[in-house]
Amino acid sequence: MKSIITRYKQNPILNPEDMPFDCFAVYNGGAVKIGNEYILMVRAEDSKRKSHAWVARSSNGVDFTPDPEAVKFVAEDMETYQKYAADSWYDPRINVVEDKYYITYAAAGKHGCRVGLGKTTDFKIVEHVSFPLHVQNRNGVLFPEKIDGMYVLLHRPDVNGGGSMWISRSPDLKYWGDTEVVTPKRSGLWDSIKIGAGTPPIKTDAGWLVIIHAVCGNCAGNYYTMGSVLLDLENPGKMIGRSAGCIMRPEADYEQTGFVPNVIFPTGAILEDDGEVKIYYGAADNYECMATASIEDLIKSCKN
Amino acid sequence: MKSIITRYKQNPILNPEDMPFDCFAVYNGGAVKIGNEYILMVRAEDSKRKSHAWVARSSNGVDFTPDPEAVKFVAEDMETYQKYAADSWYDPRINVVEDKYYITYAAAGKHGCRVGLGKTTDFKIVEHVSFPLHVQNRNGVLFPEKIDGMYVLLHRPDVNGGGSMWISRSPDLKYWGDTEVVTPKRSGLWDSIKIGAGTPPIKTDAGWLVIIHAVCGNCAGNYYTMGSVLLDLENPGKMIGRSAGCIMRPEADYEQTGFVPNVIFPTGAILEDDGEVKIYYGAADNYECMATASIEDLIKSCKN
Repeated sequence: MKSIITRYKQNPILNPEDMPFDCFAVYNGGAVKIGNEYILMVRAEDSKRKSHAWVARSSNGVDFTPDPEAVKFVAEDMETYQKYAADSWYDPRINVVEDKYYITYAAAGKHGCRVGLGKTTDFKIVEHVSFPLHVQNRNGVLFPEKIDGMYVLLHRPDVNGGGSMWISRSPDLKYWGDTEVVTPKRSGLWDSIKIGAGTPPIKTDAGWLVIIHAVCGNCAGNYYTMGSVLLDLENPGKMIGRSAGCIMRPEADYEQTGFVPNVIFPTGAILEDDGEVKIYYGAADNYECMATASIEDLIKSCKN
Repeated sequence: MKSIITRYKQNPILNPEDMPFDCFAVYNGGAVKIGNEYILMVRAEDSKRKSHAWVARSSNGVDFTPDPEAVKFVAEDMETYQKYAADSWYDPRINVVEDKYYITYAAAGKHGCRVGLGKTTDFKIVEHVSFPLHVQNRNGVLFPEKIDGMYVLLHRPDVNGGGSMWISRSPDLKYWGDTEVVTPKRSGLWDSIKIGAGTPPIKTDAGWLVIIHAVCGNCAGNYYTMGSVLLDLENPGKMIGRSAGCIMRPEADYEQTGFVPNVIFPTGAILEDDGEVKIYYGAADNYECMATASIEDLIKSCKN
């Protein structure tokens, strides 16, 4: 389909064989640019299909070198922590909030899956901060600044296999409330089963831009596309606009074939000085990829 | 089976035909005794199968007179409120916290089901306080006092049709955190599918006593029994004991037949001065019933 998004020609930027361990799949990476260094924190599955968070670094945003080891998650009380995150850490996002680096991820343990929230300085060790809300929830991303004195989180609770994008606020990253739907799924459309962040919000004059994933169904199962949402700067619980349709669909070989065919899943976005947005996304739950769009086009996509 | 619990002989204490409207079912009532007045707030379904909260009052704890009208739920921002509670208010609990009356209930709206929390003075109007946590959650009850300066809530998130009893804390009843499992379901036993409050906790020297519901499965579907749990007085996130098995099972006609056969569901408990506990429970998702046990026997049941 026609798209405002251009795939990087040498996609995937990370393949399983690029990783320094028995890697089954590498995808859904959070992204940040610090000075001239690009950092990805990807979901890296081993051949047992256990997910780890793994960092890769680059000087140009496309040629990445993985760290020798997985990210370590630590908590003051590891016994309690592991009740909720012993099984895997997946789909990590890198959130820059007031110059600090927070990792949001899906924490899977024996009681289900929930949003995990940690902080890091070196992207090797993530210190536990909290598990916001309860189980049956994931795809958490933080806004880059406090709004009305509150930290703000987007997340996507699971409701009978579907889910909308919700928002919660917190004075301290530990206690969360004012939880409401910000972008509901809609029956019969491209976002009929699930819609959620996506990338951490990017501040623009027009509003908070969030590149989102959306899921509709077909005879083969779930079909994952990419879309965009614009939220009000002062009250991000108010949606200004959502792309009329998806802005990108699985079309490349590495998106249409792999562990889960027909999945694209954006998890990181870096706004460059020239207005280009590098979008990092997982393809087919198997590969890490990159595509670009202009910030103007992304904003415009939410307004039609 | 042998049980420490004695059914009231004239059960059910409320039948659908006792209610002053086209009542389909009346059950799962929260309970409180204020002075010499017993107050139940029951789940009352109309013939369209929409649930309302309805109050009934009594001077002896068994002969109840329903109010002429359903309880009204009000919020400062009714438009927002109704996104989450327009469809029904069900399984209300009456929680006395530091001499104030809070109603916890399952709020059902177009986005799913979540715990609703309101306050009341007259049991006719419930003013909205908050929706703790997110959707796919219900069976919230509050502890009668703050612990370590925090309000404390038990609740039961749904995980793929099952659920354990969780606990959360809040400084203000609006922002919730420190959310963890306090009583997990256990495979192969009477509480293999779900376990949750139940009645608001009763403070005893031995710990916080919670009369819980538990669900196991059989060929016909879910089977609901009653059990008991004792939580640590100072850290209610720590379970001291749980009844080895269920302490009551559906055996009476009104428990074995009705809208959902084989359900008993405790939602209210009143500790009398002589140590008798009146347990209010729904039967077969159809009738409101009462049974009694001694506080000593209930505590002892958690310790074997």
